[in-house]
Amino acid sequence: MRNVVGIDIGGTNIDIGVVGKNYAVYEHIKLKTDPQKVDVFVDKICDAAASLADKYGCDAIGVGTPGRTYDNRVVISAGNIAYKNTPLAEIIEKRTGRDVYLDNDASCALYGEKFAGAGKNARHMVVLTIGTGIGGGIMIDRACYHGTDNRAGELGHFIMDINGEPCACGLRGCFEKHASVRAFVEQARKAAAENPSSLLYRLARGNTENIGGRLPFIALEQGCAVSKSVVDQYIYYLASGINSLAKIFRPELFVLTGGLINEGDIITRLLKPHLLEGVTAVLSPLKGKAGLIGAALIKTERESYAFPAVNV
Amino acid sequence: MRNVVGIDIGGTNIDIGVVGKNYAVYEHIKLKTDPQKVDVFVDKICDAAASLADKYGCDAIGVGTPGRTYDNRVVISAGNIAYKNTPLAEIIEKRTGRDVYLDNDASCALYGEKFAGAGKNARHMVVLTIGTGIGGGIMIDRACYHGTDNRAGELGHFIMDINGEPCACGLRGCFEKHASVRAFVEQARKAAAENPSSLLYRLARGNTENIGGRLPFIALEQGCAVSKSVVDQYIYYLASGINSLAKIFRPELFVLTGGLINEGDIITRLLKPHLLEGVTAVLSPLKGKAGLIGAALIKTERESYAFPAVNV
Repeated sequence: MRNVVGIDIGGTNIDIGVVGKNYAVYEHIKLKTDPQKVDVFVDKICDAAASLADKYGCDAIGVGTPGRTYDNRVVISAGNIAYKNTPLAEIIEKRTGRDVYLDNDASCALYGEKFAGAGKNARHMVVLTIGTGIGGGIMIDRACYHGTDNRAGELGHFIMDINGEPCACGLRGCFEKHASVRAFVEQARKAAAENPSSLLYRLARGNTENIGGRLPFIALEQGCAVSKSVVDQYIYYLASGINSLAKIFRPELFVLTGGLINEGDIITRLLKPHLLEGVTAVLSPLKGKAGLIGAALIKTERESYAFPAVNV
Repeated sequence: MRNVVGIDIGGTNIDIGVVGKNYAVYEHIKLKTDPQKVDVFVDKICDAAASLADKYGCDAIGVGTPGRTYDNRVVISAGNIAYKNTPLAEIIEKRTGRDVYLDNDASCALYGEKFAGAGKNARHMVVLTIGTGIGGGIMIDRACYHGTDNRAGELGHFIMDINGEPCACGLRGCFEKHASVRAFVEQARKAAAENPSSLLYRLARGNTENIGGRLPFIALEQGCAVSKSVVDQYIYYLASGINSLAKIFRPELFVLTGGLINEGDIITRLLKPHLLEGVTAVLSPLKGKAGLIGAALIKTERESYAFPAVNV
């Protein structure tokens, strides 16, 4: 394929790169998202994208973003970012002079995996993006399933605990509330606060605010029993969600991506004994670039695989 | 279409009829299933089907059954019926001298709704069969989605209560454990036992075993507060499951079928305020005949809509 700039906007970080021959990524740049200031981060995106497009001779830019999108042009809304019918493609086009296409981030990650990652041979696949929240991409018969009005695939938002806390999505006790990286961090902070003699608490220098997604794994490696029980419980939640989705979809595989998988193979090693017979979950081999790669493919490789959009 | 015998095997009852022009059903016969004695109920099926086939000049018989099926010929296994790689199509063919095709009951109900019922115009639809258990049929882009190895669509088996009781499916606190008719009856019996002064308990003549799916609705109509709270709680569970599946699939509509819908419009009237914005659930207009009709269509109308089967 010709060189295309790919942009993957997340709730915390933005990944930008140029996708070229054999889906290789040149110059993987990371920016910070300021979710309440769309103007500000879009500004930074335009600068970076224009400069990469100049350098690599790209005439197109593909953008993946959280939220509901319309017609590859507009972001209607997103839970974590202050979009409001934002004509994002048009804004970036005006600033960069390139053709711009956008799509939901989970859908981009799905196509990234399909063309360049773990799903090359899969016909039915579910990609779970486990970061600040949990997003999903559903591949059915080799095409991304978008559902009515592009609203399918909120895989982080089925009820996993009918007695759980209300979720911003309108339901309660959602999968995301148990198994996102944010949930993991909250679970770890709570356990550390309840166990001030734990290694986890000491590594956090007595301030649970210092605990992020990494620290419990570091403490676990050093033999922290509290961290082990936090990680075990978290993995159980994650496996429960994957098993539930397996009952519904029976994909050939689940591909896990998002911030969580920075921990590497320990995730799948711990997950495996909890998964139902025949359920396979692998980490994305694309090291966080599935979304970026899939975004670059919106108007190239992907087109022939899309179900026609339904907007009701 | 030409006349075809349709058979819908359920965990408790078997429906048999002849499906003819405009999907009209002639002679709707009901038999009892003896789930532990497959030989016995198959014998009864063969007698009834052969006699209907003679009378209406049918050269084919379609069968819908719970469980995993293979190649429209064999039932591999089912949770509630003692199949064991049973070559059901062959058995019925030998006895009746007609061509026999079979498929999963939920898939049959889905196609019944698509051709003759509530889903005539739908592109993405979920049919929930709410009876002894909860089964599901998923229509994506006008075709039934079967998943890898024909194992998708166990829509009664996502985890709705992570702290709930183990389920025979290997998970725990499943949707089915909360919202099947069996679960409803258990909830009603428990409430009646705890409230011996309730109208429900009195209508059951002091024996909770007399409580089936109907009685709480009869008591509710007569002003029983305990029955009201049982029904309200049950409807909340049902709505929670539908909302969760809506987040995942965003179908244009959910069609409810199975024993529950004998209660009629009160179900959808009570459900409605609990459903998320944009989520539509309707009762099957086919009065329990969706499965039978869909079974009769396996090798006629349905063929062009099927995803090719994947057996891994």
